[in-house]
Amino acid sequence: MENKGQHKTGGKPIRCRAAVSRKAGEPLQIEEVVVAPPKSHEIRIKVICTSLCHSDVTLWKMKDPPAIFPRILGHEAIGVVESVGENVDEVEEGDVVIPTLIADCRECTDCKSKKSNICSKLPFKISPWMPRDGTSRFTDSKGDVLYHFLHVSSFSEYTVIDIAHATKVDPTIPPSRACLLGCGISTGIGAAWRTAKVEPGSTVAIFGIGAIGLAVAEGARLCGATRIIGVDVNPRKFEFGKKFGVTDFIDSRECGEKPVSEVINEMTDGGADYCFECVGLASLVHEAFACCRKGWGKTIVVGVDKPGSLLSFTSYEILHSGKSLTGSLFGGLKAKSDIPILVKRYMDKELQLDEFVTHEVSFQDINKAFDLLIEGKSLRCVIWMDK
Amino acid sequence: MENKGQHKTGGKPIRCRAAVSRKAGEPLQIEEVVVAPPKSHEIRIKVICTSLCHSDVTLWKMKDPPAIFPRILGHEAIGVVESVGENVDEVEEGDVVIPTLIADCRECTDCKSKKSNICSKLPFKISPWMPRDGTSRFTDSKGDVLYHFLHVSSFSEYTVIDIAHATKVDPTIPPSRACLLGCGISTGIGAAWRTAKVEPGSTVAIFGIGAIGLAVAEGARLCGATRIIGVDVNPRKFEFGKKFGVTDFIDSRECGEKPVSEVINEMTDGGADYCFECVGLASLVHEAFACCRKGWGKTIVVGVDKPGSLLSFTSYEILHSGKSLTGSLFGGLKAKSDIPILVKRYMDKELQLDEFVTHEVSFQDINKAFDLLIEGKSLRCVIWMDK
Repeated sequence: MENKGQHKTGGKPIRCRAAVSRKAGEPLQIEEVVVAPPKSHEIRIKVICTSLCHSDVTLWKMKDPPAIFPRILGHEAIGVVESVGENVDEVEEGDVVIPTLIADCRECTDCKSKKSNICSKLPFKISPWMPRDGTSRFTDSKGDVLYHFLHVSSFSEYTVIDIAHATKVDPTIPPSRACLLGCGISTGIGAAWRTAKVEPGSTVAIFGIGAIGLAVAEGARLCGATRIIGVDVNPRKFEFGKKFGVTDFIDSRECGEKPVSEVINEMTDGGADYCFECVGLASLVHEAFACCRKGWGKTIVVGVDKPGSLLSFTSYEILHSGKSLTGSLFGGLKAKSDIPILVKRYMDKELQLDEFVTHEVSFQDINKAFDLLIEGKSLRCVIWMDK
Repeated sequence: MENKGQHKTGGKPIRCRAAVSRKAGEPLQIEEVVVAPPKSHEIRIKVICTSLCHSDVTLWKMKDPPAIFPRILGHEAIGVVESVGENVDEVEEGDVVIPTLIADCRECTDCKSKKSNICSKLPFKISPWMPRDGTSRFTDSKGDVLYHFLHVSSFSEYTVIDIAHATKVDPTIPPSRACLLGCGISTGIGAAWRTAKVEPGSTVAIFGIGAIGLAVAEGARLCGATRIIGVDVNPRKFEFGKKFGVTDFIDSRECGEKPVSEVINEMTDGGADYCFECVGLASLVHEAFACCRKGWGKTIVVGVDKPGSLLSFTSYEILHSGKSLTGSLFGGLKAKSDIPILVKRYMDKELQLDEFVTHEVSFQDINKAFDLLIEGKSLRCVIWMDK
């Protein structure tokens, strides 16, 4: 068991290895760090493995706030509870948990409601601290503070997370698959399943079929969509797409002067029932809205554009189309109830996760994971802490 | 019966009185006009009464397209079928019908779908013609063409409408109430009932409590909303509002420097479940979106802003809020199935319509109806053709 010897470490700081991001865009450094014991409502976990998501790369490259250094990045992971702080009764030592960037406090109006996944008590923010007391649990060998990332910071052998950010899962799920459910893949599946509520027999268009877009396709496939159109500038991605139910591929560079929306409107005789923007470009949100079906089409914004970028529509477009526009944070999933459902559907061989894992590396090779993602070679690269 | 003697007129042109709008902003002129017999898929009706809606005033004032003169305005009405053209089997002479600006052809994908009310066969447009053959059925005493308005043109003792634009209703409903269901009041009720699908116990905010906004309140009340906040610059409207279930009133001029959205967020501890913009100002759509509840709030655009006016949101607002934005044409109602439901609910004393009718005038006083609406004195003024 991963938790053997936990009685020796519980309540005490742990010295372990972490991959520290010390300067924007420079390779992470594997260093010895000190991880303080969990405080009230917190747990300390031994990370089993973690996967690399685009948000890690974005905040690693970024020079200005919300970027901050030195920081321990990483937010898609799975780990074993090493010790728990006070006021934690949901998990105990030895439990397997998936951390999430969004909280599910189980107490506020939102967490109690079936309709919201946006916790009011611990609202989402790209903070460098623990969510409740605004301090760090990490110090480096000189005793200087290391900042947290998205309340997870999984590029460390041990990390401390708030119990509201942890979901206990079936420990028999292979960790290299389970870790994907911490952010990107869940976001995509949830966008189709929970936010859009894709109906059987419907037509879906996905702008950008990277890992998130493919996860949208997988979610749409599970919901029974019969036609899934993938739009991308990279035709190689269509090969991946086929595995996740993408039935049609549009290379947007080959549309000439015709807008992609027009191509989709023609292909679908009036537009797709659901359009998902997974690239993070305001202009593509317009394209998506333009080719979602009048009368009932839904456009779901999944991609993250630059701060301040504007989505503009004429009131006529909104008013007279019967279309709707909505966003999706973490795919509209409620972490503690929905992640276990996804785990079960994977174990029942309904949900495909294996196909997302294109690469696996050891912790010391973590910078290779960055290269692979940046070069567009990987969908998800899993980083094993113990290998 | 209204249709006695119909055998004398069917198939022949009818000479009758109409209120013709000959020049932008100038009083309508009651003239003798000639109404041609209905062609294929058309019916000719004897208008019983008609009410005045803001869109009539807007297109009467407007100098540039889509305004066009000379035109017969009017689009909220009820009438008796005088004669029917070929290929009409839904109604016969003597039936009572409510014309609607949107079509319900019963044949296209949209009209067959429960999810859309935007007919594909006869799409909505502010056209000066009959929808199928693009010609007029009206000529003046000199034989010159008079233009149609919204496929209804009810400011005439007789008018020709496409069968797709006519809904047969229970003839026992008082006509001065039934005519309201042709546009504005149905739009407001439908926005709450069909577009937003307001849930029992919810909180609603309505920007602009003129007739449409009050109809939204009435729709929300029928759906079981327990708190209905009306926002307006005219506190007198709150007196009307109370009749339709408005529980709270905000005079937006008295909010000082505090945005109305902030006032509503404070009153509701985080925002209303549903926000309706009924004024037609892009800036108010932003206010509405800003005070609809994160996690599940819906903002519904009901008001019509100037062509080309832009609604702009940061992608962050859309992405991270869990809110949605949608438009509503004719309140999302499917004319032929939903108007009869509203008629029944009125007859069953559930739906309030009487309170909307603040004034009634005879046809020859039609210009008074314009004055009353423009001066903000009336909610709905009913114009009786036979009085």
